[in-house]
Amino acid sequence: MGGELGKVGLVGPGAVGGFYGGMLANAGVDLHFLLRSTYEFVSSEGLHLIHHADGGRKEPVKSLKAYRNASEIGPCDWVIVAVKSTANDELGSILEPLVDERTSLLTLQNGMGNVENLARFFGRERIILAGLCFTCINRTEPNRIESIFPGYVQFGQYGSSPSPKAEGMIEAFENAGVKVRRAESLDEALWRKLCWNVPFNGLSIAGGGITTDRILSDAVLRARARFIMDEIQAGAKAHEISIEDSFLDRQLELTEPMGPYKPSSLIDYLDKKPVEVEAIWGEPLRRGLSKKVPMPELERLYRELLALTDGS
Amino acid sequence: MGGELGKVGLVGPGAVGGFYGGMLANAGVDLHFLLRSTYEFVSSEGLHLIHHADGGRKEPVKSLKAYRNASEIGPCDWVIVAVKSTANDELGSILEPLVDERTSLLTLQNGMGNVENLARFFGRERIILAGLCFTCINRTEPNRIESIFPGYVQFGQYGSSPSPKAEGMIEAFENAGVKVRRAESLDEALWRKLCWNVPFNGLSIAGGGITTDRILSDAVLRARARFIMDEIQAGAKAHEISIEDSFLDRQLELTEPMGPYKPSSLIDYLDKKPVEVEAIWGEPLRRGLSKKVPMPELERLYRELLALTDGS
Repeated sequence: MGGELGKVGLVGPGAVGGFYGGMLANAGVDLHFLLRSTYEFVSSEGLHLIHHADGGRKEPVKSLKAYRNASEIGPCDWVIVAVKSTANDELGSILEPLVDERTSLLTLQNGMGNVENLARFFGRERIILAGLCFTCINRTEPNRIESIFPGYVQFGQYGSSPSPKAEGMIEAFENAGVKVRRAESLDEALWRKLCWNVPFNGLSIAGGGITTDRILSDAVLRARARFIMDEIQAGAKAHEISIEDSFLDRQLELTEPMGPYKPSSLIDYLDKKPVEVEAIWGEPLRRGLSKKVPMPELERLYRELLALTDGS
Repeated sequence: MGGELGKVGLVGPGAVGGFYGGMLANAGVDLHFLLRSTYEFVSSEGLHLIHHADGGRKEPVKSLKAYRNASEIGPCDWVIVAVKSTANDELGSILEPLVDERTSLLTLQNGMGNVENLARFFGRERIILAGLCFTCINRTEPNRIESIFPGYVQFGQYGSSPSPKAEGMIEAFENAGVKVRRAESLDEALWRKLCWNVPFNGLSIAGGGITTDRILSDAVLRARARFIMDEIQAGAKAHEISIEDSFLDRQLELTEPMGPYKPSSLIDYLDKKPVEVEAIWGEPLRRGLSKKVPMPELERLYRELLALTDGS
């Protein structure tokens, strides 16, 4: 199972990358982890996955292949990119030892612009697949990654429907026990995902470090969240992507039962880690403005976030 | 904060008991944990709480008071009961050293009949409070307890509205950072909670060890789930408790986004631990039948579960 993918490198095994990489490796994929600060600890202590939807079941990653330098891994058939999008400018040099003419790329990164960034470095003709992660995964120790809510990964290929090789990667996730969906249009899937991330991740930071329940219960913030969604809907429409009003309503409804939830960007912000301001807020704003769609609420939020994060 | 509760004993610090007990202790409650098999490990390694809704934040329990025998703790102002209801018959002897005439009791146990069981051993005039836990907490190591979904605890007092002393316990939970709700009627809250637990915990076992998404997607099991809810609604009505149809519909709707979720009873069953058959299925069935409400679907499920668990 999964062996037909060939050699797979994985860069940036934080929460999402480490969890899916570990599941793929345990399902027989020839997976090579590039580790940085955690290399020594993970090499000696192993990597452990916890499935909380399964009562906290523990899954150690068997025969983990961990490396400190990309050159030790060498060229791969696939490279899975799971670094934060704030490091996107450095991906050309980070990935260079892993990529030759046969290499396809899968980005599991947040936000918009990641496939274009990889195309900029490695060419638009290459197979570049994106996996949008609708899940909740926390790393609680350097070598312990915990899936809180398994959710699913939605795949879409840059500039085309999935090619047979890309389909092989999607099936490898499925064989490893990850629920997958296929996007008819990657851009549509990205715009739709942002309908939640842009208002809730953003207002939780701009609102002073608040959980999503407080955005919903504050009439002003709730209205702002909905205005921002309307702007995203308009931005998508200018790109010939139609998002129904009911989809926007549903984003608010689905957030109610989540209770006092901290979006991932808020956790980054509170931990003083880089916040993915450009991928989540900057890029949809630029795409909307490029089509002359006014997005005053998104622009205000973007500027607030830049000020709060010093443009991190 | 919380010191005014006096001395509090906690029996059965598994997932729920250990987590809330740890939060209360860290908020200043004079909390004494009665441990059995985990005594030595927890005494030497400490008890650690993980808050996944807060990005996996770790909270060690400070200055943990752990005991191996109830007689070392002695009589308490409050005893929190968090053992499984399958041990209910033994609670008279287990709790005896902790209880004198001043002692009030709080049960955090699952299902119906727990306050009556405590009243049977310690008298109906005593303050007996129940806390219904709408949450998801897993213990992943003997000394590591993880809150996946914080949810809330709904409190109701046996036979009355909360007395001032009971109100003190509810406020102690609130001060410790637990979201609380107050039930106007404890019995109503219990019947309502069972509208989810009875069908989903039960059918996940009787259906062959399946997750809740498979109950929803199987037309027969989904219909059975709804029939069982209708019977619980009728059983509650015979006790003058009204549950709206829309509440039953909502149980199904709220289960959709949970995905491939394993209810706690299924996890017990798969781990070959005792399943709380009497508290979750037997007791509502007996209460319905005592009012001559026919409950054929609940009875069938109850008998299937007894057969599958050898009446554990």
